[in-house]
Amino acid sequence: MFYHIKELQYNAKPEKPDPVYAKKLQEILGGQFGEMSVMIQYLFQGWNCRGEQKYRDMLLDIGTEEIAHVEMIATMIAQLLDGAPVQDQEEAAKNPIIHSVLGGMNPQHVIVSGLGATPTDSTGYPWNSRYTIASGNMLADFRANLNAESQGRLQVVRLYESTTDPGVRDMLSFLIARDTMHQNQWMAAIEELEQNQKAIVPSTFPQDLEKQEVSYSFMNFSRGEESSQGRWASGPSMDGQANFEYDGSPKAMGQIPSLSQAPAYIHDSPIPGTPPPSVDKANFSQPNQ
Amino acid sequence: MFYHIKELQYNAKPEKPDPVYAKKLQEILGGQFGEMSVMIQYLFQGWNCRGEQKYRDMLLDIGTEEIAHVEMIATMIAQLLDGAPVQDQEEAAKNPIIHSVLGGMNPQHVIVSGLGATPTDSTGYPWNSRYTIASGNMLADFRANLNAESQGRLQVVRLYESTTDPGVRDMLSFLIARDTMHQNQWMAAIEELEQNQKAIVPSTFPQDLEKQEVSYSFMNFSRGEESSQGRWASGPSMDGQANFEYDGSPKAMGQIPSLSQAPAYIHDSPIPGTPPPSVDKANFSQPNQ
Amino acid sequence: MFYHIKELQYNAKPEKPDPVYAKKLQEILGGQFGEMSVMIQYLFQGWNCRGEQKYRDMLLDIGTEEIAHVEMIATMIAQLLDGAPVQDQEEAAKNPIIHSVLGGMNPQHVIVSGLGATPTDSTGYPWNSRYTIASGNMLADFRANLNAESQGRLQVVRLYESTTDPGVRDMLSFLIARDTMHQNQWMAAIEELEQNQKAIVPSTFPQDLEKQEVSYSFMNFSRGEESSQGRWASGPSMDGQANFEYDGSPKAMGQIPSLSQAPAYIHDSPIPGTPPPSVDKANFSQPNQ
Amino acid sequence: MFYHIKELQYNAKPEKPDPVYAKKLQEILGGQFGEMSVMIQYLFQGWNCRGEQKYRDMLLDIGTEEIAHVEMIATMIAQLLDGAPVQDQEEAAKNPIIHSVLGGMNPQHVIVSGLGATPTDSTGYPWNSRYTIASGNMLADFRANLNAESQGRLQVVRLYESTTDPGVRDMLSFLIARDTMHQNQWMAAIEELEQNQKAIVPSTFPQDLEKQEVSYSFMNFSRGEESSQGRWASGPSMDGQANFEYDGSPKAMGQIPSLSQAPAYIHDSPIPGTPPPSVDKANFSQPNQ
Amino acid sequence: MFYHIKELQYNAKPEKPDPVYAKKLQEILGGQFGEMSVMIQYLFQGWNCRGEQKYRDMLLDIGTEEIAHVEMIATMIAQLLDGAPVQDQEEAAKNPIIHSVLGGMNPQHVIVSGLGATPTDSTGYPWNSRYTIASGNMLADFRANLNAESQGRLQVVRLYESTTDPGVRDMLSFLIARDTMHQNQWMAAIEELEQNQKAIVPSTFPQDLEKQEVSYSFMNFSRGEESSQGRWASGPSMDGQANFEYDGSPKAMGQIPSLSQAPAYIHDSPIPGTPPPSVDKANFSQPNQ
Amino acid sequence: MFYHIKELQYNAKPEKPDPVYAKKLQEILGGQFGEMSVMIQYLFQGWNCRGEQKYRDMLLDIGTEEIAHVEMIATMIAQLLDGAPVQDQEEAAKNPIIHSVLGGMNPQHVIVSGLGATPTDSTGYPWNSRYTIASGNMLADFRANLNAESQGRLQVVRLYESTTDPGVRDMLSFLIARDTMHQNQWMAAIEELEQNQKAIVPSTFPQDLEKQEVSYSFMNFSRGEESSQGRWASGPSMDGQANFEYDGSPKAMGQIPSLSQAPAYIHDSPIPGTPPPSVDKANFSQPNQ
Repeated sequence: MFYHIKELQYNAKPEKPDPVYAKKLQEILGGQFGEMSVMIQYLFQGWNCRGEQKYRDMLLDIGTEEIAHVEMIATMIAQLLDGAPVQDQEEAAKNPIIHSVLGGMNPQHVIVSGLGATPTDSTGYPWNSRYTIASGNMLADFRANLNAESQGRLQVVRLYESTTDPGVRDMLSFLIARDTMHQNQWMAAIEELEQNQKAIVPSTFPQDLEKQEVSYSFMNFSRGEESSQGRWASGPSMDGQANFEYDGSPKAMGQIPSLSQAPAYIHDSPIPGTPPPSVDKANFSQPNQ
Repeated sequence: MFYHIKELQYNAKPEKPDPVYAKKLQEILGGQFGEMSVMIQYLFQGWNCRGEQKYRDMLLDIGTEEIAHVEMIATMIAQLLDGAPVQDQEEAAKNPIIHSVLGGMNPQHVIVSGLGATPTDSTGYPWNSRYTIASGNMLADFRANLNAESQGRLQVVRLYESTTDPGVRDMLSFLIARDTMHQNQWMAAIEELEQNQKAIVPSTFPQDLEKQEVSYSFMNFSRGEESSQGRWASGPSMDGQANFEYDGSPKAMGQIPSLSQAPAYIHDSPIPGTPPPSVDKANFSQPNQ
Repeated sequence: MFYHIKELQYNAKPEKPDPVYAKKLQEILGGQFGEMSVMIQYLFQGWNCRGEQKYRDMLLDIGTEEIAHVEMIATMIAQLLDGAPVQDQEEAAKNPIIHSVLGGMNPQHVIVSGLGATPTDSTGYPWNSRYTIASGNMLADFRANLNAESQGRLQVVRLYESTTDPGVRDMLSFLIARDTMHQNQWMAAIEELEQNQKAIVPSTFPQDLEKQEVSYSFMNFSRGEESSQGRWASGPSMDGQANFEYDGSPKAMGQIPSLSQAPAYIHDSPIPGTPPPSVDKANFSQPNQ
Repeated sequence: MFYHIKELQYNAKPEKPDPVYAKKLQEILGGQFGEMSVMIQYLFQGWNCRGEQKYRDMLLDIGTEEIAHVEMIATMIAQLLDGAPVQDQEEAAKNPIIHSVLGGMNPQHVIVSGLGATPTDSTGYPWNSRYTIASGNMLADFRANLNAESQGRLQVVRLYESTTDPGVRDMLSFLIARDTMHQNQWMAAIEELEQNQKAIVPSTFPQDLEKQEVSYSFMNFSRGEESSQGRWASGPSMDGQANFEYDGSPKAMGQIPSLSQAPAYIHDSPIPGTPPPSVDKANFSQPNQ
Repeated sequence: MFYHIKELQYNAKPEKPDPVYAKKLQEILGGQFGEMSVMIQYLFQGWNCRGEQKYRDMLLDIGTEEIAHVEMIATMIAQLLDGAPVQDQEEAAKNPIIHSVLGGMNPQHVIVSGLGATPTDSTGYPWNSRYTIASGNMLADFRANLNAESQGRLQVVRLYESTTDPGVRDMLSFLIARDTMHQNQWMAAIEELEQNQKAIVPSTFPQDLEKQEVSYSFMNFSRGEESSQGRWASGPSMDGQANFEYDGSPKAMGQIPSLSQAPAYIHDSPIPGTPPPSVDKANFSQPNQ
Repeated sequence: MFYHIKELQYNAKPEKPDPVYAKKLQEILGGQFGEMSVMIQYLFQGWNCRGEQKYRDMLLDIGTEEIAHVEMIATMIAQLLDGAPVQDQEEAAKNPIIHSVLGGMNPQHVIVSGLGATPTDSTGYPWNSRYTIASGNMLADFRANLNAESQGRLQVVRLYESTTDPGVRDMLSFLIARDTMHQNQWMAAIEELEQNQKAIVPSTFPQDLEKQEVSYSFMNFSRGEESSQGRWASGPSMDGQANFEYDGSPKAMGQIPSLSQAPAYIHDSPIPGTPPPSVDKANFSQPNQ
């Protein structure tokens, strides 16, 4: 169960409105790696958690914090939209600045939400739950979380540098700091889990059932071998089970596929010499007679 | 530019058809973490790569391999659909097995694709490009890749145990092995990048611009403190810059939000005492006169 | 069955082109609450109607009218796009007005539809049928309809004030008037239905099967009790069955959730002390041997 | 800012697993009118609220409660999935019951989420934010909310009757009761708002600017006049401004549309006699010379 | 403007209910090539038509007919759903037939639409307007239409053979016949247009501006030359302008791509030796001071 | 299996950056008829092909070429984004050109992809696999392909004329030429297939099972008969089986639909006189007792 308190987790006070920037800021609210994504992702990982209680608790802690981040950014966007221009073409044409603001805004911020934040990204595309992942395997999911926080902090930083509004930058400096913590947090949790299991997810599948001759081989599918220079091409593998190999010209190990002809009821293009289809006509009179 | 050779990378030969399993196998073809996702993800990361050539080459190598994985699974699915039953309700009712196969199949495998694989997941939901990520920051993106390969291998393993068909298991054992390599590969690449930069993405943002007092603090937003027991709650932070702290009862640091009243042209519910709206009527005669 | 006549239901004649406004006008054509939504919603409610014939007839009357509204707006948009500028960056840079028009237009209006209306909203997002509702329960659905007409009229009014083109305003004044009728119509139909049944949807579920102790209680989940001042917090309930109560500090009534451990075939992160997974290996030789 | 407590708002304890029912129960978690929809809808309406504080407070109260409902249903689904069968075709064929369970389950509940709830509906379609509405106009939005709670309670009731599991029914009886309250609540809030403004949304648009001759007229667009028998066809209009009229054979009031020819750069099919297009060739040498 | 008459264009009377088939029949109602797609496609092509009036009229004729097809199929589906079983797991387990019907139905047909048709396809995926095309170029669009009618008739035929219900087959025999007409119709219209212009769309682009050396060359990108045996590999081209050539080993004609380094504000992974980023810090005090 | 070579198929070298044009160019990369669509469409048609080997080979040849086209356009977009402006509102306001560029860009090109191409269209909408078709029937699918290449070439031509950058135009002149070939190719393949079968897809359905009296009749559903003037209204049908007829006033051939009342468990609005619903209450005590 959840409770709400009226104060924001941190200040969301822009110095002045900026509807074009409001459109951009939507990316970290309702975008692929926005706060809605991590909020739903952490909450579902927590609710579905079948592991130790401390992980469930931790997931719900951070999931609950992310609701507060959504709240902060939504509040900021509403204020950035204060006084957005709504003018006709002809009037606006006299003032290029207003005109370009009208062109650069998200029109739904006026027409649909009435100067409020929307659960969409910076192009107006709605948030959807395929952005999130909760597989039940914590090591897999914590890697998803580390990815989400890495992409997220990167985007906030890019937005920080796209404005000079001190109030907006102040709020973003808080989010950037929390993302510093959250990247650290998932790295810590990953390290802890890897101490209890092998590094390859899932660690519980018997490795002798996999096709082991290609388990540690880097395959070069391009002309040229620049890819042989990386850590992934030689030396001990990261899971400590083998050594990396570099296969400069990998061979096909499979058959040339040849599918059998489709049955009559599929109605593919007929092949000359093929017998006619076998529609069951016997049981039916002609249509509508 | 790309070339195709007719042999598959590895065998895709089921022992016998199984249209219900074909529906499930679609998950690793066109699902969120299926082969189409990593194929598009690695190719776009490679094409957009502005870093060292060896990374671009490596990305396009593995992206090209993934096209071959899509090819293998598509071929497998088409064969699992051979001879799928297409019968009327009454006939099927006499044979519960056939009836439950008809109910458990994806109907589009007959109606739409004519016994062919579709670029969709196991519920029939179409693949879309929001499954992929290519941010330009390689450390961020390689974490996305490690996540994708972790989720992917987990799903293949679950599918492996949902069938006993030796031919299907043979192909999956190959994919599982490649995913072992690919998890290793991204871990190796991540390690290499972290040697050249700090662990927090992006590493190039001046840390004194972030709100540093919350950069290493775990905030407890639940009643109860199980979450204090993890590696993330104490000890040195993973980026080596500070120590983790546990904040058992985090305080709100922000304002109580209070949005200003909307302008007249937004047409919110009127608030008693508010002046009437100011629609520009002067320039217009009544409509259609 | 349907027939078409060539005249529009009402005039759709803009005074002059305005491609930036054409992009905005798409919202009421193909947006969440645009004319396509109500057209499909009313037609499906009518076709699925299992109630009295007068409701089916009424639904198909208004559904048929909405096709004509889609036609009017599509025609208007095509004319607003007449002569949309298509110029290169360098030329446009010399004329800020043209440049901002190019930036503010929907590029698909040139590239994809060739100066025609598209079945999308003002951000270019395609219309989809999850915007519509037809549940079979008419009271529920007429509330959906009243909502759709309320959001719709609100958006048309906002668009009316975003242009000064007399021809556009003339057409919108017609749509606004029809929305006045349609809000009235659904309120009338709701009133009529509520005379034959109770106000709570569905009225046919035996109320003694619901957890009645929380059926009329407003629960305060925020710090502070401003929400106690509303009509919903005291006095007789709207369905006339009880009195509203205000629960200032609602208590959790449920268990602390604790999920059982996942079976081996799910391959969650292993928990120390857990026995190894039980993959069925006996029936299979090693892969590909 | 938000806090979490570990107890559920109400019990979520199924008597025994039922993976086919778990798939259905997803509808009220992640469907169009599931708990995620009302949770996001109320929270955004609250965060964007520019009206009186008591409305903002009320919206955030109920929005916060809905997070707890999502939590309850997610927890229930995870338990209904305990011990879901994962078997191969051949084994299952021997047991029709198991086979039909395998066919009737959502395969992603095993492959993707590992026996956890997913933020999707009963067909596996992901939740998306176009399900929600927050327009800024409270009367419009409260009608949306009344609609959402009506559709929601209807669906929960249908699900109640699709199971006999006492634990599931117990939880659903709680949700049904809360939906009784929430329908009452929105009706109360709507009544309160209508006392401060006119019933037609938005009430602030000057009615003399709409095309008033069609503002209270029901138009019959079908052959036959059953629709004349409803409350909407005669008597005083619901907003008290006029009387309903029934227009048995509405006439077209608009022009026959005739679009002007597209400019050359659109490359429509040429019309005989039309001059050739005017591609700017002068400034360019032939390609790649 | 449109009118409705109450009779269906053709009979829609199933002999008996079949909820599993109802789910399949949704494909031709709300699928990619269902009747909703051609209805919206033809109407928008007609409304956007800037060519001769006879084309506009023809498009609106067939678009109007398609509304009637949607009506017929929706009516059929509602009747196929009559008496759909709604039972609990335990009861159903005693009757494998009922159990498999429950598993094979679309659960939304009970929970969401209350035994009514939904604007979705056979997997429950909602219809969306990206299924349609209206480019303004009639030759291009009529090819889209010929494609849509070809896919559509193919799907109806596959559905015809999946049932033995005489009433369903009767309705489908009507739709199949209309699709025969509609394929003929678009072939006729294409032939007519090609008499007024060249066959390559768009015909109005000056051909000397294209890279003509590759305009008639089939490029072999696979190992093996089976593809040289087709009509496309030799002989006169279909537009009569040249002869087809077969290029057995096409060469790359482009550069090796090398992107320049990203600017500092993009925050890519740093490259050793690169100068640090240049965030504008001078104008700002430290955050929140 | 696939291989990559580092050279592009053709040059992708813009003369200078143009981030607004980069947004537009996305249409032919990730739009409905962009290169990703034909790439996936041809590959799946090839992988699913059950016909002669020469068709499979041809499909995989062209599918493989399309991967190279995606590569070229992605590379071009990345270069057009070089040096995209990232500035705050106030600075930009001083320079209208920069301001309108900021408004006209896709914000995700900075925030999300870091100056890289994205798998989306010109409005930012993500590519999805419902854009593609692979039905198994080659004649049907080749018509889909001819449509895709017609729409595609039309869009490339419109983009060609929207820029004067010689490097961009050079690349587009290559794509236009290839689309000339590809339209020719599909026309040739269609002609070849039609020599082996009848022109109506599918040709294998016995025509005496369709409702033949409407198989060659054009039905006029509009007031006015302009549509009678086309090739489709008279003369021999294109399949050579009959003559076209023009039905100036088509009659309804079906019943007036009348659905039976819904069962109690659907909980429609009650109809006066209907008995109350029959919820199974006997087996259950009151909730939570």
